[in-house]
Amino acid sequence: MSRFFSEKLERLVPYTPGEQPKDMNYIKLNTNESPFPPSPVAVELANRETLNYQLYSDPECTPLVEYASEYFNVQRDEILFTNGSDEILNFAFMAFCDKDHPAYFADITYGFYRVFAEINCVPYEMIPLRKDFTVNVEDYVNKKGVIFIANPNAPTGIALPLSDIERIIVSNPQSVVVVDEAYVDFGADSSVSLVNKYDNLLVTQTFSKSRSMAGARLGFGISNKEIIRDLNTVKYSTNPYNVNRVTMAAGLGALKDDDYMRSNCESIVKTRERVKGVLSDMGFEMTPSVTNFLFVKHKKIGGELIYRELKDKGILVRHFNTDPLKDYNRITVGTDKEMDALIDAIGSILEEENENN
Amino acid sequence: MSRFFSEKLERLVPYTPGEQPKDMNYIKLNTNESPFPPSPVAVELANRETLNYQLYSDPECTPLVEYASEYFNVQRDEILFTNGSDEILNFAFMAFCDKDHPAYFADITYGFYRVFAEINCVPYEMIPLRKDFTVNVEDYVNKKGVIFIANPNAPTGIALPLSDIERIIVSNPQSVVVVDEAYVDFGADSSVSLVNKYDNLLVTQTFSKSRSMAGARLGFGISNKEIIRDLNTVKYSTNPYNVNRVTMAAGLGALKDDDYMRSNCESIVKTRERVKGVLSDMGFEMTPSVTNFLFVKHKKIGGELIYRELKDKGILVRHFNTDPLKDYNRITVGTDKEMDALIDAIGSILEEENENN
Repeated sequence: MSRFFSEKLERLVPYTPGEQPKDMNYIKLNTNESPFPPSPVAVELANRETLNYQLYSDPECTPLVEYASEYFNVQRDEILFTNGSDEILNFAFMAFCDKDHPAYFADITYGFYRVFAEINCVPYEMIPLRKDFTVNVEDYVNKKGVIFIANPNAPTGIALPLSDIERIIVSNPQSVVVVDEAYVDFGADSSVSLVNKYDNLLVTQTFSKSRSMAGARLGFGISNKEIIRDLNTVKYSTNPYNVNRVTMAAGLGALKDDDYMRSNCESIVKTRERVKGVLSDMGFEMTPSVTNFLFVKHKKIGGELIYRELKDKGILVRHFNTDPLKDYNRITVGTDKEMDALIDAIGSILEEENENN
Repeated sequence: MSRFFSEKLERLVPYTPGEQPKDMNYIKLNTNESPFPPSPVAVELANRETLNYQLYSDPECTPLVEYASEYFNVQRDEILFTNGSDEILNFAFMAFCDKDHPAYFADITYGFYRVFAEINCVPYEMIPLRKDFTVNVEDYVNKKGVIFIANPNAPTGIALPLSDIERIIVSNPQSVVVVDEAYVDFGADSSVSLVNKYDNLLVTQTFSKSRSMAGARLGFGISNKEIIRDLNTVKYSTNPYNVNRVTMAAGLGALKDDDYMRSNCESIVKTRERVKGVLSDMGFEMTPSVTNFLFVKHKKIGGELIYRELKDKGILVRHFNTDPLKDYNRITVGTDKEMDALIDAIGSILEEENENN
């Protein structure tokens, strides 16, 4: 760091995004992108909008907010779009956490929550998952702070039922409960239906996964209008034009082309369930993922070895080098063809290992 | 605000972007956008990239950084791209300001500096401009904090010569000096040439004005590699994929099409100087702006009245309702045709006022 870097951030450890090596063309199963291209409607609306680049984007994202509010069945002042869902999650840390309101989240979850807490210099507590990576809901009852729950969770892929989410919301009337639903479209129940029932719930989602728009950077939050107003206060105090006009147009297109998204999600779910069976037969244990990724561990071979051997064979998966995750790999569910290549590669690795032992 | 909003931000007053009324089609001279469309090269590269929306953008912005580092004659680790220049300015407040390192900036300057200081809960001091809106350089000598200077300044349009900027940098060896050059391409000297000479200088620029890309959100900072590393630490702790892939491609196209940008800037400067003469003949006083806007005050008629009457006639200019700015309006330099419409409208307003008195 430079000699000017503020002491308050001295011990900050930034988030590490999934690797994007440029040495060869990999089959990328490491960042949970969609294997499907963006909706043609999204592309068409986006390409029309690049001609207007000279004009600032609408800070209120009006057409997108109008359409999305009908789509999600909420009011226009109950939704806020951001530059990816990372931005609205950070806004929530900024708006609601402080020295008297620590952040609570699982010890194994989206790794960025810890970083958001640290960059904002707010206290946080990481609540251990059970050994089987499930959440013990009772651990989240009666907290005096802000609760962040990824549902489904990452990198485990496990979802809580809405009744559990509701138990957490009800038992924390003095706290904001943030439910991060980045992966909800692949098989979990969304808490958006609870927003009108409770005044302490913020649900965040992203266009990065199910809507094939990771590279467009579009996320959003749905909550009651007071909480959305607070988040807007933060937005207008950091980056009022946070969503660029082309992403805004693409987002509108993606929402309009809902059938395309649904059909892609169905394909991914079908592929996921097939691959679960195959990997299980090959000696892998795995969590009951309802997302677009699998979290798998081989009974005999270490996670890092599998990660490295796959990379040598041109397939990237995500490996976390910490206990108790290091036996596992997080594997994005790609197309059937990509998953067949993965299965072949894993087959070879297992064969080689068998010969070596 | 909601009952959950953190007390530390209770008194935060967000930035107010220029109005974007949707009731009719205005001639928009209120947000300093370019009157020229984006470069066709930018549009072409952008439209090619929307097809890849399903993939995350490269957090290192590699092709853009490579091209820009040659363009600006700096090393690759001396430049950082962000989601508009507002983002890198906020990063600088986050990285370098704290309770022991207050922010210093002019009392009349880009209104966001105050907001950045407040959202980051850091102390700040606003240094008064002289009565003629010029900066007294001696006021910026030997500060123990972080100095933010818009050069040219907004909304005044007045630039400091490089020798004055250098005096401020040299006299503050223990402080980061941030030179915000949003409007530099319309006639001021850039401090980028000083980056290799001093280790405490950060220069920020934007693609919003001279490069016709306000709606794409692309800004950047140039500094020595240690300061850029600090700003990257903040970026990777808030939003690693902050620049979307289509904006990145458009930015590369805009840089490559340098002749287009230069020629647009020349047109704007020519129009600006012509309009200065006409408005002066009509009884306006103005600052010696070297930007793409004019900061003008009529000898007899109040700023707010002119703003309101122009709006009624379908022309938006920016009015700030505080002393001593309220006599003035900030008028973006548009095309010759737009400025002729402005001059006609002002002519009518002056005529009406003459008749009324």
